[in-house]
Amino acid sequence: MDTVLDVDALAHGLANLSMFPYFDIAHYIVSVMSLREQPGALEVSRLSPLACWFSSMLFCFGGAVLSGVMLAEPPVAPLSNGTGVLLATLIWYLVFYCPGDLLYCCTALLPLRLVLSGMKEVTRTWKVLGGVTQAHSKYKDSLLVMIAIGWARGAGGGLISNFEQLVRGVWRPETNELLKMTYPTKITLIGAVLFALQQTQYFPVQKHHLMLVYTVFLVANKSRMMLTGSSASPFAPIESVIYKTLFLGSPYAALTGGLQDSCMGHDASTSTSTSSTSTSSSKNRAAVKKRPAASSDQGKNGSLQTRDQNQDQDAGSNKKSD
Amino acid sequence: MDTVLDVDALAHGLANLSMFPYFDIAHYIVSVMSLREQPGALEVSRLSPLACWFSSMLFCFGGAVLSGVMLAEPPVAPLSNGTGVLLATLIWYLVFYCPGDLLYCCTALLPLRLVLSGMKEVTRTWKVLGGVTQAHSKYKDSLLVMIAIGWARGAGGGLISNFEQLVRGVWRPETNELLKMTYPTKITLIGAVLFALQQTQYFPVQKHHLMLVYTVFLVANKSRMMLTGSSASPFAPIESVIYKTLFLGSPYAALTGGLQDSCMGHDASTSTSTSSTSTSSSKNRAAVKKRPAASSDQGKNGSLQTRDQNQDQDAGSNKKSD
Amino acid sequence: MDTVLDVDALAHGLANLSMFPYFDIAHYIVSVMSLREQPGALEVSRLSPLACWFSSMLFCFGGAVLSGVMLAEPPVAPLSNGTGVLLATLIWYLVFYCPGDLLYCCTALLPLRLVLSGMKEVTRTWKVLGGVTQAHSKYKDSLLVMIAIGWARGAGGGLISNFEQLVRGVWRPETNELLKMTYPTKITLIGAVLFALQQTQYFPVQKHHLMLVYTVFLVANKSRMMLTGSSASPFAPIESVIYKTLFLGSPYAALTGGLQDSCMGHDASTSTSTSSTSTSSSKNRAAVKKRPAASSDQGKNGSLQTRDQNQDQDAGSNKKSD
Repeated sequence: MDTVLDVDALAHGLANLSMFPYFDIAHYIVSVMSLREQPGALEVSRLSPLACWFSSMLFCFGGAVLSGVMLAEPPVAPLSNGTGVLLATLIWYLVFYCPGDLLYCCTALLPLRLVLSGMKEVTRTWKVLGGVTQAHSKYKDSLLVMIAIGWARGAGGGLISNFEQLVRGVWRPETNELLKMTYPTKITLIGAVLFALQQTQYFPVQKHHLMLVYTVFLVANKSRMMLTGSSASPFAPIESVIYKTLFLGSPYAALTGGLQDSCMGHDASTSTSTSSTSTSSSKNRAAVKKRPAASSDQGKNGSLQTRDQNQDQDAGSNKKSD
Repeated sequence: MDTVLDVDALAHGLANLSMFPYFDIAHYIVSVMSLREQPGALEVSRLSPLACWFSSMLFCFGGAVLSGVMLAEPPVAPLSNGTGVLLATLIWYLVFYCPGDLLYCCTALLPLRLVLSGMKEVTRTWKVLGGVTQAHSKYKDSLLVMIAIGWARGAGGGLISNFEQLVRGVWRPETNELLKMTYPTKITLIGAVLFALQQTQYFPVQKHHLMLVYTVFLVANKSRMMLTGSSASPFAPIESVIYKTLFLGSPYAALTGGLQDSCMGHDASTSTSTSSTSTSSSKNRAAVKKRPAASSDQGKNGSLQTRDQNQDQDAGSNKKSD
Repeated sequence: MDTVLDVDALAHGLANLSMFPYFDIAHYIVSVMSLREQPGALEVSRLSPLACWFSSMLFCFGGAVLSGVMLAEPPVAPLSNGTGVLLATLIWYLVFYCPGDLLYCCTALLPLRLVLSGMKEVTRTWKVLGGVTQAHSKYKDSLLVMIAIGWARGAGGGLISNFEQLVRGVWRPETNELLKMTYPTKITLIGAVLFALQQTQYFPVQKHHLMLVYTVFLVANKSRMMLTGSSASPFAPIESVIYKTLFLGSPYAALTGGLQDSCMGHDASTSTSTSSTSTSSSKNRAAVKKRPAASSDQGKNGSLQTRDQNQDQDAGSNKKSD
């Protein structure tokens, strides 16, 4: 009874916590540092400080920009928040150009970085909740829109990374956050679903309790990952179960195996599908070659193989901003 | 007299036809099937069901998203139409992951596919008309805007295909629907022009009559193309005449021949234009090499050659969603 | 005293000058000509007049489209200005397809081109001012938004060039106007800053005086550059001073030199940063190799080298629309 009260008080306290300025600053520092750790980012910071600044702003305010675009609200709106932009700009300057590289050297120390990352995770809860509430005020009863906006607001930096990279002259179309979700994007999606369900009363729990639980999980798990240095998602087992249950029907085998011939033999589209395979991008052709033929079971292995490769080749972008 | 009445009654009946649910379902099925027949789509459906789902939604609701962006209305709006998204999601799941691949095997049979494609074409009339009306309500007297929005609404999936492919990790900048229009995009553009002219009274015909004629043409021509397996556009002759009349002036020859020297000799921009040619993309350099030099007549052949090559290399994408 | 009056009268006269039709026409002619001088543009004009027309419209109305997107106003709005689009379309047709290539041959003559370019520069003042005013009406006290919108309106064609090229099937992600600003983009940014400061009273000068000075500078400098054929920016010295003062701190050296080891040695992110370097785009890897190791001083040379190369490889795109 007593503990319950304490927890409730704690939840209320957290819910009334203000992100500005300390948590926002932590968010800006961690975001700009993750930009600086992108391949080639330091070259860009020499070549064109303006492009580097714009990239940093996309890392810091990407979520607001993306959710703004999705709701047809001005994407420049974040710029109108003068204080925030000034803070982010100051931090961008110190991280990239500080004499002696003092700021980066300090914040790169594990203990401090651990604290800052934890504080950044706290802001995620507020962003997701903000997105869900904003969407709720526009589309009363549309769960999907709330989830989409909450997700975009919380994980915007990652979702628009293809275009953020384009600002720096990097273009990697073969990968994006939808094809290969990183941990921050996944956990944000889950949060958006939970808060949207709570908002629409389908999930009977008080908002400040959900905020407390979600925030604690975010911070605890982030710290675990940083300390153990593992990027293993805690949902891996669940994911794999869902994946195996829902998404391993036979069409894939059908493509590779004999089933297709039997069912697509007298299909006008076969010719097209073949000719188009012949014009498929080299990446796809490679995949087709690599894929073991026939049985649904081998089909599984094939797809899982492709998955792992993808994870390997993306190892570098695991620290992508979010 | 009697037939006239019948036709008029038929036109009225058609105009009052509801697209939901049967025609919408047919649209979703055909759209998702055309996604599945894109090169590499099945690999993506294994690698990341989420990216595959998002691509499917772009195939099904691309028109609404694009016209929304063009009119600065929320691109997430289609998500707020819960029933439509649920239907499309169900069909996406059955087409890609249905055990035994039943749905795809059935719908891939020519007769059924013929019916579904016909029904999908019917929805095109409604989409184009919807776009034109929506634009008319915002920009009373602007024919161009009505045409643009009607076209975008009716052929959105094709027009945004570059970005839809990006979701699947495919990037083919060398081709897009403007550089090489496919049949669905062309016929939708013509429809948008007709309905916009009708809306602004320049084209003195009753709306429901135009809807009947346009729909009948869409369905009849689509069926012809599927049965004969030819992707030949019925407008090819007209197009070629217009093209030869309007777009074969001499600048092209000027570039290759001596005319340019005579007229650009004392032009500050020559140096630039030369140096920029030297930095032109390999594709362009190839074209330049291949092109026969000099006279306007040969210039024609040159351009038509390029055209044909383009058609060949794009054969695979003829079934692109629309 | 008398001269002061004259200047004031002149400034008033200029401020009341109407851009339509003559200055707009000059803007359209110069813009479409700069498109025609892009590598491969003439091939596209043969391959697909529609893509060529769309590209031309982006060159002519790119600023309006971009600022529209940034303020969540319909990007199709420029199409609703019938007269402007008709004029631009007529000029597009004459520049690309005019029999005998008459228009291009005439306008390519240096004296005429000089006049037209001068008139085009005049329109820039009006566009920047229009953007700043529009932003001011929406975001009263946000200097940054005014600068952003004024810049976008005045230099839109250049800022969206990556996507304008995509319409023509060209994709050059390794360069954009932020990574390597061209002269028109720079001078427009300066203008946007000045007009925004004037609008917010921070810069105590009368609007029509600022318009006069800025316009005279634009025209005079553009003429100088065209006559001398030099693309040297008049701000080069100032830029280089600012650059050397602000943006040559030690992180770059830190990356190359021993400092990094000392400060990133016990940092969880080192591994990531290393592995990601290994997956960096070839361009970046090249840069990394080329870069001389260690001291901050050599770091400078390294970065300046990269700069020059960039300038060389982009020589072709210096005439990019603006």
